Amino acid sequence: MSNDAAVRNLPQAGALLTDLYELTMLQAYHASGMNDTAVFELFVRELPPTRNFLLVAGLAQAVEFLTQLRFTDAEIAWLESTGRFGKPFLESLPGLRFTGDLDAVPEGSICFAGEPILRLAAPLREAQLVESRLMNLLHFQTVVASKAARCVLAARGKPLIDFGLRRSHGAEAALLSARASYVAGFAGTATTLAGALFGIPTFGTMAHSFIQAHDDEAQAFVHFARSYTGNAALLLDTYDTEAAAHKVVELARRLRSESIAIASVRLDSGDLAAHARNVRRILDAGGLQQTTIFASGNLDENRLAALAASNAPIDAFGVGTRMNVSADAPFLDCAYKLTEYAGRGRRKRSEGKATWPGRRQVFRRYDSERRMEGDIVTLEGDAQPGKPLLVPVLRGGRMEAPLPTLAEARDHARAQLGTLPPALSELHAAPDYPVTIAPALRDYAEQVDRQLPIAPAPSVYLDPPG
Amino acid sequence: MSNDAAVRNLPQAGALLTDLYELTMLQAYHASGMNDTAVFELFVRELPPTRNFLLVAGLAQAVEFLTQLRFTDAEIAWLESTGRFGKPFLESLPGLRFTGDLDAVPEGSICFAGEPILRLAAPLREAQLVESRLMNLLHFQTVVASKAARCVLAARGKPLIDFGLRRSHGAEAALLSARASYVAGFAGTATTLAGALFGIPTFGTMAHSFIQAHDDEAQAFVHFARSYTGNAALLLDTYDTEAAAHKVVELARRLRSESIAIASVRLDSGDLAAHARNVRRILDAGGLQQTTIFASGNLDENRLAALAASNAPIDAFGVGTRMNVSADAPFLDCAYKLTEYAGRGRRKRSEGKATWPGRRQVFRRYDSERRMEGDIVTLEGDAQPGKPLLVPVLRGGRMEAPLPTLAEARDHARAQLGTLPPALSELHAAPDYPVTIAPALRDYAEQVDRQLPIAPAPSVYLDPPG
Repeated sequence: MSNDAAVRNLPQAGALLTDLYELTMLQAYHASGMNDTAVFELFVRELPPTRNFLLVAGLAQAVEFLTQLRFTDAEIAWLESTGRFGKPFLESLPGLRFTGDLDAVPEGSICFAGEPILRLAAPLREAQLVESRLMNLLHFQTVVASKAARCVLAARGKPLIDFGLRRSHGAEAALLSARASYVAGFAGTATTLAGALFGIPTFGTMAHSFIQAHDDEAQAFVHFARSYTGNAALLLDTYDTEAAAHKVVELARRLRSESIAIASVRLDSGDLAAHARNVRRILDAGGLQQTTIFASGNLDENRLAALAASNAPIDAFGVGTRMNVSADAPFLDCAYKLTEYAGRGRRKRSEGKATWPGRRQVFRRYDSERRMEGDIVTLEGDAQPGKPLLVPVLRGGRMEAPLPTLAEARDHARAQLGTLPPALSELHAAPDYPVTIAPALRDYAEQVDRQLPIAPAPSVYLDPPG
Repeated sequence: MSNDAAVRNLPQAGALLTDLYELTMLQAYHASGMNDTAVFELFVRELPPTRNFLLVAGLAQAVEFLTQLRFTDAEIAWLESTGRFGKPFLESLPGLRFTGDLDAVPEGSICFAGEPILRLAAPLREAQLVESRLMNLLHFQTVVASKAARCVLAARGKPLIDFGLRRSHGAEAALLSARASYVAGFAGTATTLAGALFGIPTFGTMAHSFIQAHDDEAQAFVHFARSYTGNAALLLDTYDTEAAAHKVVELARRLRSESIAIASVRLDSGDLAAHARNVRRILDAGGLQQTTIFASGNLDENRLAALAASNAPIDAFGVGTRMNVSADAPFLDCAYKLTEYAGRGRRKRSEGKATWPGRRQVFRRYDSERRMEGDIVTLEGDAQPGKPLLVPVLRGGRMEAPLPTLAEARDHARAQLGTLPPALSELHAAPDYPVTIAPALRDYAEQVDRQLPIAPAPSVYLDPPG
């Protein structure tokens, strides 16, 4: 990781990838013998102004994290070296595994503020320890999938390719944003390793440096087309886009005798719609009606929508940075909160951050045209009309059933996006989707409050959380 | 990485963590025998409106990446399996190493738009291949260090702790944002593994869940204080902040007999300044003048500045999400561009994205009070008044000298921030810092344009890049 690394043999995403307070709390729980069943929920408090819905992603990585959780000897030795942890606690760590239950909303599902995305029921120490990384994994992929879904809706069926490795926030961000955008409906990624790890289709064109390294642009095109296996895309905008398009026409004639076709050209700067029209005209006039136009450069859902509205003859898009970092909303106000311990409901009452107690479930109703009509949040066991969103994933630390494949999650996302009420699938802010709290949950929250160590503040009732 | 991983034995940040086009270009260069020395520069085209300067970070990881670059058999086998690459090219990969030169601005340095942060001179294929990951590493840490530096300036000397693991964009983002914020002057991090890997001081308090899991808040405080080795911080805002502060006072009397002191309390919601004043009064009246107040919750440089201006009695801050994702500017418009190949200057002329040719250097002048006065960008070898910013790092793929340690980079950052012209160290937008282009570089660019395959567009001259 670094030449200033103090310890070399620690895994980068192991048990120490956690906030220090998880470990100091664990030590306190250990000292006082507290390890009854705790229920924690992960949810998003509020949506950013530019999100009408969330598209959930990251569950596969979260499950992998939970099922592989363990402390290595090197990790325990490092903890010991800090002088913060006593021997009895450290000796409890080698045997620690995640042995609890997990219920979660499947990847590719649509969710809203206040709805549990994931619910853990596990011995307190296990459920507490996993907080930081569980949030880290689910938060990020949901951030990206929700942004990417907007791009997919805006592109009106034209293929989108993830181009964002270089400005993603590190290696894992690049890999997981490739994955999350694929779940949301992107056609593939330029990130080679994401292809290898996840089986996502990979795409690539050429960089300006390739053209610049040659003394002659046409020579660069020829070198590239000859060496490329598959559908070569030639980059037109290094010097003069339209002049380059004329060169491609000439070149295509020469290469036809070698049975090489110019599958595609790429535009990466300037007025993409105007250049696309000019280039389309030049290519068509030159007999290259089959050559497609690929565009990239600072694209996001708003620019995609503008290009779609202008009927620019662009066949596919590379969408990078602004999608991968979710530039207009790079984080979600998500939380992971204790809702039950040792069989008793728990809630936090902090100003502006109060939470609901108990084990919650969400039911979704659809209208006669299979559009989402409204959600009801209630307690598990309180049957409501509609389909429950949370499904069992782990029981006793083991998989209930195989998770959906990446392709299945992507299909599910496509189907879910198809059930959005029309206003919610627009880019501009829609009226809130109706998420209501069932009487059973309200009653339970009041009952829990009566048992709280302090009198309830009325404002908390008047301003229900979620 | 994932249960839908197609290939399990690939390193997550190895040679395949690159855009596919780097590899297809490499194959084309290989086929045509092109591998002369190429010079590439990494720079930021334009600063976000809310950044007056950049604080450079990430060089240590970039150097580690370059010096460890190699293709494993598994990676080459995967590339072969795609059917995109021919045998001659694949056979060139096992021996590929980075054998070039690297000059770079040291970590913790201040930089501006258009200035090279890093310059590679290496055989074309090596210099091209490393583009994606080199940018990925330097871009992200520079994004975070630049944001964190604003927080440090706004906090006016009060310690800041990185709290952002949970909403960082993945594992590496959490670890590297802990590192980058430490370079910028943060006092430490809550991310345990960042402490282990980089030797950064780690800090932790307790979560609301710890309080909630206990039936009684005071009992939770006692359990925590008794088990904690070091300076326990008790979280006050789970139910009622001021009531909790009174409990701490009572509790401190009881714990004194056990030689346990309450070092600190934490506020995490509501009006932090108002609660801090109330809590300070309660603690002082209870004889806890030594107990410090720590605050967290949606903080960024603007909120830190407001709290500092209000003279709130807060001793230290936890700063998370908004710093770690650089919420107002989660990416920089950075580029990695070919500026010379085979001894000839090269430049890109794309609309709005033109670049300077040649091997550039930056000289910085200081006034008599050791404040930065202005930078001149010129060609390497054209001596200018001031101090050159880029220094040799690698020669022939090997370290010229050990890199500065993390502590040295942090010291350098502190010194650099001390040389900022006063307007630039404010949070609001300052007039541009003067960065001028030396005549030698202008002349060279014109000379390169005369050799370009097409006539120069006058607009490119009128609107010089950088």
